[in-house]
Amino acid sequence: MKCVKCEKKAIINIRYRNLRLCRDHFIEYFEKTVKETIRKFKMFSKKDRILVAVSGGKDSLALWNVLNDLGYRASGLYIDLGIGSYSRVSREKVKKFSKESGLELIIRDIKAEYGKSLEEIKARRKTCSTCGIIKRHEMNVVAHEHDFDVIATGHNLDDESTVLLSNILRWQIDFLSRQHPVLEPWHEKLKKKVKPLCLLTEKETKTYVILKNIDHVEEECPYSVDASTLFMKSVMNSIEERFKGTKYYFYTQFLKNIDIFKNNKKWKEDLKECKLCGFPTNKDYCSFCRILR
Amino acid sequence: MKCVKCEKKAIINIRYRNLRLCRDHFIEYFEKTVKETIRKFKMFSKKDRILVAVSGGKDSLALWNVLNDLGYRASGLYIDLGIGSYSRVSREKVKKFSKESGLELIIRDIKAEYGKSLEEIKARRKTCSTCGIIKRHEMNVVAHEHDFDVIATGHNLDDESTVLLSNILRWQIDFLSRQHPVLEPWHEKLKKKVKPLCLLTEKETKTYVILKNIDHVEEECPYSVDASTLFMKSVMNSIEERFKGTKYYFYTQFLKNIDIFKNNKKWKEDLKECKLCGFPTNKDYCSFCRILR
Repeated sequence: MKCVKCEKKAIINIRYRNLRLCRDHFIEYFEKTVKETIRKFKMFSKKDRILVAVSGGKDSLALWNVLNDLGYRASGLYIDLGIGSYSRVSREKVKKFSKESGLELIIRDIKAEYGKSLEEIKARRKTCSTCGIIKRHEMNVVAHEHDFDVIATGHNLDDESTVLLSNILRWQIDFLSRQHPVLEPWHEKLKKKVKPLCLLTEKETKTYVILKNIDHVEEECPYSVDASTLFMKSVMNSIEERFKGTKYYFYTQFLKNIDIFKNNKKWKEDLKECKLCGFPTNKDYCSFCRILR
Repeated sequence: MKCVKCEKKAIINIRYRNLRLCRDHFIEYFEKTVKETIRKFKMFSKKDRILVAVSGGKDSLALWNVLNDLGYRASGLYIDLGIGSYSRVSREKVKKFSKESGLELIIRDIKAEYGKSLEEIKARRKTCSTCGIIKRHEMNVVAHEHDFDVIATGHNLDDESTVLLSNILRWQIDFLSRQHPVLEPWHEKLKKKVKPLCLLTEKETKTYVILKNIDHVEEECPYSVDASTLFMKSVMNSIEERFKGTKYYFYTQFLKNIDIFKNNKKWKEDLKECKLCGFPTNKDYCSFCRILR
């Protein structure tokens, strides 16, 4: 199998794009796709200070690395949720990457900050749901306090097309209306949120970190992604297997049509500020402060 | 397993509704669901003359039977496409049912009418696509000529939720905007089209025809439903297996939100009348007359 751009041996076959690429041309393609995604969705410019949420996994480290390589001003944010050895290992990998790349890293240690680790907080909710609330809150707080211009996360095409399918099956119109690679800030304390890897698959980010020798956490979080999400990913993969290009087409065509979901603005109607942390919420206290108490 | 309504043995477990029912209560439930579907979507009244498209399979015969039992004025339309023994057997089953029930049956024999069977017409299209064009055309022609008020088809919840999923994955906005259990006539030569079984699953219609001793074609059409549809049905079934109620919720919530797909009226813009048959089309000749020539 030869690279379609040169005579070298192809190291990846990107079936849905009908592209077989060698090492160098794959990295060129990966960087170009990220660059075009940033440009197409007007995510940020070279002047902006970007806060990259890094977990230590392949996607977030791939994102941080590619943004740096492309010349953007990207700092990392690692949120330590105190999940035993998993958090210790991933924190070390992130610190190592930051040191080797000479990039600023901000660490938020939940236990140090609030006196409770994820396990002590989770209470009656599912762990993944609690974790999501904490991470979103911490990203907002750090971006606000350090005055970043934009928050970037490593969501890839597999993540986005799977969430899209789940949201569609339940007709979660509000979620659908906001499932864009760019979420504009809708309150003065919030920052723009972007997903520069949204047009690249899991397989592609995985290949990128391997080729770039980026040391990342291989093990899954012990709580793992919740089983429903894994199931929906397998459904999406089986459809892709059968109809190649479905993930890409399904997601990008959704983006072209996203406005049809935007009439419903109910979620903004009752907007208040949380009485404890001051961040926007539709109740007296935000989800984060509610689960913390 | 006992019936939830009486002490008798349940013969079906309708998991997504959490209903275990005996023979009599299942039939009561089936009839009630059809009646409520007709009422809820304002399909037709007892005065209307209904043309039921019958293939000889379980869904269409279940529909014809239940409409008759509920006191509606339902005639059958059998379209003979000349598909070898499959057509011969199904035609006989439909004739037998019509005779035993004393219900009017109209037979349209494609070969007799146009001098060509499906196999001779299909040309460059996929057979299922050609067949769909012919059947839709013939239903329109017969309903118009015999002045029926409405055309009813046996599409069930499995059909509708699967087509919905396929249309969504491809963002076929035009198809989505029209995927309602009631399609109002949008031209003077067309009749209203309705799907009274759309809230009942394949398993339920199958159970109904067995309990009612309705002799129907078991064998699939030799061209079968095209493989893609069968694949999407299996995907939908695996999701249902995991999250019971998905088919029902996905489809009914879509119906509540269908208006968001209705802005796009492009397909009506270039409406003309076919120069050969006079039925509406957006070209000089309709699909049917084009494939026939």
